[in-house]
Amino acid sequence: MNEFELIARLTQSLPTNGQVVAGAGDDCAVLDLGVPKKLILFKTDAVVAGIHFTPETPPEKIGRKALARVLSDIAAMAGTPTAALVTLALPANFDAEFVAKIYAGLNALAEQTGVAVVGGETTTNPERLLISIALLGTVPRGKAILRSGAKVGDAIFVTGELGGSLAVRHLEFEPRLAEARWLAEHFSIHAMMDISDGLAGDLRHILFASRVGAELLKSAVPVSRAAKLRAREGSTAKPAFAAALTDGEDFELLFTVASQDAVQLLDAWNKKFPKLKLSCIGKIVAREGILIRDKHGSQRLNAHGYVHFP
Amino acid sequence: MNEFELIARLTQSLPTNGQVVAGAGDDCAVLDLGVPKKLILFKTDAVVAGIHFTPETPPEKIGRKALARVLSDIAAMAGTPTAALVTLALPANFDAEFVAKIYAGLNALAEQTGVAVVGGETTTNPERLLISIALLGTVPRGKAILRSGAKVGDAIFVTGELGGSLAVRHLEFEPRLAEARWLAEHFSIHAMMDISDGLAGDLRHILFASRVGAELLKSAVPVSRAAKLRAREGSTAKPAFAAALTDGEDFELLFTVASQDAVQLLDAWNKKFPKLKLSCIGKIVAREGILIRDKHGSQRLNAHGYVHFP
Repeated sequence: MNEFELIARLTQSLPTNGQVVAGAGDDCAVLDLGVPKKLILFKTDAVVAGIHFTPETPPEKIGRKALARVLSDIAAMAGTPTAALVTLALPANFDAEFVAKIYAGLNALAEQTGVAVVGGETTTNPERLLISIALLGTVPRGKAILRSGAKVGDAIFVTGELGGSLAVRHLEFEPRLAEARWLAEHFSIHAMMDISDGLAGDLRHILFASRVGAELLKSAVPVSRAAKLRAREGSTAKPAFAAALTDGEDFELLFTVASQDAVQLLDAWNKKFPKLKLSCIGKIVAREGILIRDKHGSQRLNAHGYVHFP
Repeated sequence: MNEFELIARLTQSLPTNGQVVAGAGDDCAVLDLGVPKKLILFKTDAVVAGIHFTPETPPEKIGRKALARVLSDIAAMAGTPTAALVTLALPANFDAEFVAKIYAGLNALAEQTGVAVVGGETTTNPERLLISIALLGTVPRGKAILRSGAKVGDAIFVTGELGGSLAVRHLEFEPRLAEARWLAEHFSIHAMMDISDGLAGDLRHILFASRVGAELLKSAVPVSRAAKLRAREGSTAKPAFAAALTDGEDFELLFTVASQDAVQLLDAWNKKFPKLKLSCIGKIVAREGILIRDKHGSQRLNAHGYVHFP
């Protein structure tokens, strides 16, 4: 049983109550706690030494990344973050200065995004540092964007450029909070999430939740410079397009809108956010799975996200 | 720098915002998210293999304990728990059946206490299992009981019996949710917290936050049967009274009320909760620190919680 099968099994029968609007399975849980015009967003995420950062990663960037990841999940629901709790699981001989620097990076991003850090805890994890952040946010009632709303015919959009994030960007990405709120305020966004595990894998989450499929236009997928540079590193390097589909840690927004809104949205975006690329990469179709089209024809993406063009 | 010094340093300058009613330093953070008659409680807590449970601990009890600990923090504020997120950091070769049993224990307690489990995540922690729970709760406005309200002359109460919890009870304790809500509804409780690190250490948190001291009557401190039994195990065993003061993981309520309310409270408690002992163990005084009185005289408790009677 792999991690995904385990999660599927565990989330089948979770206890629920009348406050739950959306439980496990979206970027955040959505709760109705009785705020007149708002719903509450609730999310946790952890980073672990040796997995999400290396011994060489500056501590300020570890702290920043830990918070940025959960902020990206709040953004994916078009929400506004409010308050965070920080769990630090520290190795046996922790360096207090190192921990203070983790907080410095985390606090700077919290201040920048209006988040209060309201406590948390330190505990012991003898072999390695682990940081888990719990984050609360709010979203106007009726404006939370779930993964399950994609409709056949929708245009599929992605912000920024994809792939190669582990070179640098995974430590410095900007959670797309303002962009997501602007999208939700001005357009009827059908489905949205943030790309944390790679475009191919995460698009599947939207497709599965919405019971639809997708056709992507290969030339429209924005491939990052880092992915292109890495692809040239030698014959064993991952091709740049495969990197854009499957590299993790992009933390860009992936969303769908009705096709008749697509051009207007793209125009308005380019005026509002001229420095952040927005790409229409394909459309939602009825047939399940992901089809990639290029000038030579089309090919279905396999379950692991990889694709080989002739 | 030890853990407590580190926490003190880190919590000096945390980012805040207009939603924060009480940040780091109490059992839960208290937030005003605009619910008309309620405030929001927010808390995280982690358990780690080899520290909070052993390889022999049944997985159902690990899951139950992980949730019970945060429920106890919501109880300590006189709150009602609402929704939880579960972070499972799994060792390299995790056993899916084992994980499912962790959830079974956790879910059973969640259902019993009305808590929705609204997701979370699994991540990798190669050497050992770590479970962190983030919990939301609510409390009527004006009814959240902080640590900082103890006043000179207050009677100090503790529920249940203390010490020796690691023998069995730390895996089976009942968070005192109903009891705490009843206390807050019927009496003006000045300060409250749950005892997780031992009476002596945790009472100091109330004293520090309230800028007062305490006098305890040795004979009034309820010592558990487990602590008494363990004290008889040999000449190197911890004396039962020291165990009641310093053993962790009791998860009983510690609170103070005005002395004129003490007798009425005790009478009402014994009618309402006849099976759960409530003990008045001393009083709040102006002089800082903790003084222990017995028939031979009185002695100040040292900083580490231990005390030696002649």
